[in-house]
Amino acid sequence: MNSNPSPRTDTREKIIEAAASLIPEVGWGGVSSRRVAERAGVNTGVIHYHVGSIDELRRIAAVRKIRTFFLDRIGDALTRTDPAAAVEAMLRVLSAGGPRDPELLLLYESLVAASRDDQLRAEIAASLAELRQWLCDWFAERGVARPLPVAVTLTAAIDGFLLQRMLDPDLDPGPLIEGLVTLVEHQLA
Amino acid sequence: MNSNPSPRTDTREKIIEAAASLIPEVGWGGVSSRRVAERAGVNTGVIHYHVGSIDELRRIAAVRKIRTFFLDRIGDALTRTDPAAAVEAMLRVLSAGGPRDPELLLLYESLVAASRDDQLRAEIAASLAELRQWLCDWFAERGVARPLPVAVTLTAAIDGFLLQRMLDPDLDPGPLIEGLVTLVEHQLA
Repeated sequence: MNSNPSPRTDTREKIIEAAASLIPEVGWGGVSSRRVAERAGVNTGVIHYHVGSIDELRRIAAVRKIRTFFLDRIGDALTRTDPAAAVEAMLRVLSAGGPRDPELLLLYESLVAASRDDQLRAEIAASLAELRQWLCDWFAERGVARPLPVAVTLTAAIDGFLLQRMLDPDLDPGPLIEGLVTLVEHQLA
Repeated sequence: MNSNPSPRTDTREKIIEAAASLIPEVGWGGVSSRRVAERAGVNTGVIHYHVGSIDELRRIAAVRKIRTFFLDRIGDALTRTDPAAAVEAMLRVLSAGGPRDPELLLLYESLVAASRDDQLRAEIAASLAELRQWLCDWFAERGVARPLPVAVTLTAAIDGFLLQRMLDPDLDPGPLIEGLVTLVEHQLA
């Protein structure tokens, strides 16, 4: 979000955003150079100049959106100082999306694509590891006795809950929040 | 698993198994009547006679495999009487699969397909709700004080962990087992 982007950066951003918005709409395999060029308002040749292949573009767009999805939403929750309140806030904001939330659809499309693309798989795994470590450090600083099991359980439960909510949009986050808050509270001195 | 199937059931089973084995290999959309007929050794017309449309066949095959995946593996773990030991056994058996485990690939293919197929979505959601309830009842019978939050947190964490392990095959189940066992132990009188 550079406030004074160069024209080069600006075009590259438009291309990445166009690809990211297309993934949930037309599916991973449906994101073609032609469609991205149409949506971004550029020629297809410009795409290859800025981001290389269409495979590379899909990877860049997907990894960026997945990072933003988690880091933005979780970062907000971590402005609270009480670990149990932060966990509750995190679950509330992550479960606010509707059943056809484009960011969630992008996440699922990317996961399936990752099962056939080792580079994408490794990049998503690295983002997840970073998120897990960030939460672990955060819990450690706030006096949680066993921060690693808490951070790992929390990230697994969040991912699983997001997946289950896509299947069942009415799924109540209440019991999960209670379970995770209890886990954290038992670890506070 | 009828020990004395009728020829009709036998053919239907072969068709469903063929479709289930094809989903992880060729992707959801790649499962055609022609491919299923080839693998099952039947004519394409027989497929439509036994299971209706190819969409219906994919749904039947996917939901059956997803149910089997969870119910078989979790059922084994629940033969233990100690809830904490059962949780550990469950996580160990569910994390035993390799990175290209066909049953996991089928699960992810089905989840993406479900985002575009309301009937499939509802059927997978119903299986998940059943699993959650089964675990909740099991924990309640074994003296877990708040069985619903424990069952919900456990199923979410399992789903999320399976997803994360596809991304990172070396992901250690240890910290998750510690987190979930701690959660259960705190709830035992």
